[in-house]
Amino acid sequence: MWNRARVWDAPETGAPHSGGYGDTVPRPTTPSPRPIDLDALTDGVLAADRTALGRAITLVESTRADHQEAAQELLSRLLPHAGHSHRVGITGVPGAGKSTFIDALGMHLIGHGHRVAVLAVDPSSTRTGGSILGDKTRMARLSVDDHSFIRPSPSAGVLGGVARATRESIVVIEAAGFDIVLVETVGVGQSETTVANMVDTFLLLMLARTGDSLQGIKKGVLELADVIAVNKADGPHVTDAKAAARELAAALHLVALESGPDGNPGWSPPVLTCSALEETDLDTVWAQVTAHREHGRRTGAFGARRRRQDVAWMWATIDEQLLSRFRASPAVRERVEAVEAAVCEGRQTPTAAALELLDASVLGRHA
Amino acid sequence: MWNRARVWDAPETGAPHSGGYGDTVPRPTTPSPRPIDLDALTDGVLAADRTALGRAITLVESTRADHQEAAQELLSRLLPHAGHSHRVGITGVPGAGKSTFIDALGMHLIGHGHRVAVLAVDPSSTRTGGSILGDKTRMARLSVDDHSFIRPSPSAGVLGGVARATRESIVVIEAAGFDIVLVETVGVGQSETTVANMVDTFLLLMLARTGDSLQGIKKGVLELADVIAVNKADGPHVTDAKAAARELAAALHLVALESGPDGNPGWSPPVLTCSALEETDLDTVWAQVTAHREHGRRTGAFGARRRRQDVAWMWATIDEQLLSRFRASPAVRERVEAVEAAVCEGRQTPTAAALELLDASVLGRHA
Repeated sequence: MWNRARVWDAPETGAPHSGGYGDTVPRPTTPSPRPIDLDALTDGVLAADRTALGRAITLVESTRADHQEAAQELLSRLLPHAGHSHRVGITGVPGAGKSTFIDALGMHLIGHGHRVAVLAVDPSSTRTGGSILGDKTRMARLSVDDHSFIRPSPSAGVLGGVARATRESIVVIEAAGFDIVLVETVGVGQSETTVANMVDTFLLLMLARTGDSLQGIKKGVLELADVIAVNKADGPHVTDAKAAARELAAALHLVALESGPDGNPGWSPPVLTCSALEETDLDTVWAQVTAHREHGRRTGAFGARRRRQDVAWMWATIDEQLLSRFRASPAVRERVEAVEAAVCEGRQTPTAAALELLDASVLGRHA
Repeated sequence: MWNRARVWDAPETGAPHSGGYGDTVPRPTTPSPRPIDLDALTDGVLAADRTALGRAITLVESTRADHQEAAQELLSRLLPHAGHSHRVGITGVPGAGKSTFIDALGMHLIGHGHRVAVLAVDPSSTRTGGSILGDKTRMARLSVDDHSFIRPSPSAGVLGGVARATRESIVVIEAAGFDIVLVETVGVGQSETTVANMVDTFLLLMLARTGDSLQGIKKGVLELADVIAVNKADGPHVTDAKAAARELAAALHLVALESGPDGNPGWSPPVLTCSALEETDLDTVWAQVTAHREHGRRTGAFGARRRRQDVAWMWATIDEQLLSRFRASPAVRERVEAVEAAVCEGRQTPTAAALELLDASVLGRHA
């Protein structure tokens, strides 16, 4: 049984450091960073201890090899306790009011006895990382409520890393007993597809302000949506919003005719209106979100979707590992400089160069 | 010298079929699809023959192994004649008027003696493929002009495949003597990053109609932009558009402060206004696009960017190949079913399952 690892809080100086975590496991002889007690961490998460929860997610988010090993052990312990939440992705065009919506919806759900976690997937800047606004300031009420847990997007940079951390954080959060997990995405790059691939129900927030709703739809995103809500149906905009919802429903009908059965046979994504600001019709929107889950449970699509997602996640991990091992292999390291030079100087197409490196490597040759 | 292959137009029936392409190469003994004469295709492309150009791109787009082999040979022949165009990516929020802009800009450039090709990257629908509108109907004048060549997005489905086909089509188009290549993207998924990574200059079209310009900016896309134009600065919207451009310039200044030098030191993306509908200030926008190239040539950033792009493309190809060879390897094929079942039944995390398959394979073990 794997129990302790030298993980996080490692002093930068490399100075010896005793964590004081008991002594049943031999202390490493090299200067040791503070060890982590996986038993205590597991128990803490299962007891919904907020500090343990935060630490467990930090461990899952870490990209260090030893942290990852510990994280996988933690996750395999938590896995039997996970899976029982409704995982709901939320995306929307910029300005659609996602933060206000999640804050209002989250409080509404807590008022009905739920425990709500909010995660974010925001690999927003390809060069700098990070998002413009802090997560906690965006959800003023939810962020201070005892029945909620808000975690900002991991800032690992590449979408693949952010996605892995978020998917595995869902396991931790579910093991801690949260029964609703909202995964928000800012809709940058392919993050919408990524989030749709880790949730049970994908909710698309639309905005009707421009009077040009059809132009505003990204077709790919529309087809990911299980429930669509036109937000900001308030004040003078109610008529516009309802018209936009009708137009959207018509457009969706067209798309559905093209794409046919999509793994949840018999479910047609409803198009609703609501106002997060005035907190009207949030219950109607949520009712459709739960109706989607119930429909999927009846048809078997709910379980099938989760299984499909987990298998896809496995393959994404394999892909990542294969490439990093290939790059590290001696045959590749030996030739890569010359091949890259040939590509840079226009002597070889990138595709031909790729095939040459693949042929040079054991990994590439084994078909 | 590789010269002929059994490529495309293979009859579905497998019936013998003579292409009538000369007889210097032994006819295969198996029922043979129509062969392709790479010499003729190369000559045709270099002579800017439109039929040859279309066929060459179709060959490049094909995912069949024998077509790909022929395509790589064709590309290696064309490569010495390629590279001389200005590759310009164009993206914009939905409704920003990309089609009208490209049609007007393309005609403007042709009027100044250029030959203009338009490619599209549109992996828009993750489930059905294809875009809502046909490319030719969107660019009414350009599509019938002798000095232009418009090619719709390859419908390969996955972004990686679409990107490879588009990148390699640029080589074909350049070899045919087109000196301006406009690569349009619909801004779905991560297609904007993909296109920015295959062009010299990336132009972002904005729309000021909502009066909420800052909300409308995807930060990641803003940072990819080399030139920004607020379109639809016409009629009653001129004031709004100019105000939005000022606001954008201010926002950009903030971003630039954060991200620092980005590989083109000394270039600050200008923010302009224009009207594709009224054809005003298109020359001003294009002047900044060429200024960006000239600046890059002076600093060396132009060549550095192309080299970086080619190397990245090589690695993307390697990634794709590694995964497909891994999937095809006997050890993986033997175990994959059981491992996928363990993941499906929640007995194993996807990450742990990935590591198990990697350990089982020769490709995975060789580090």
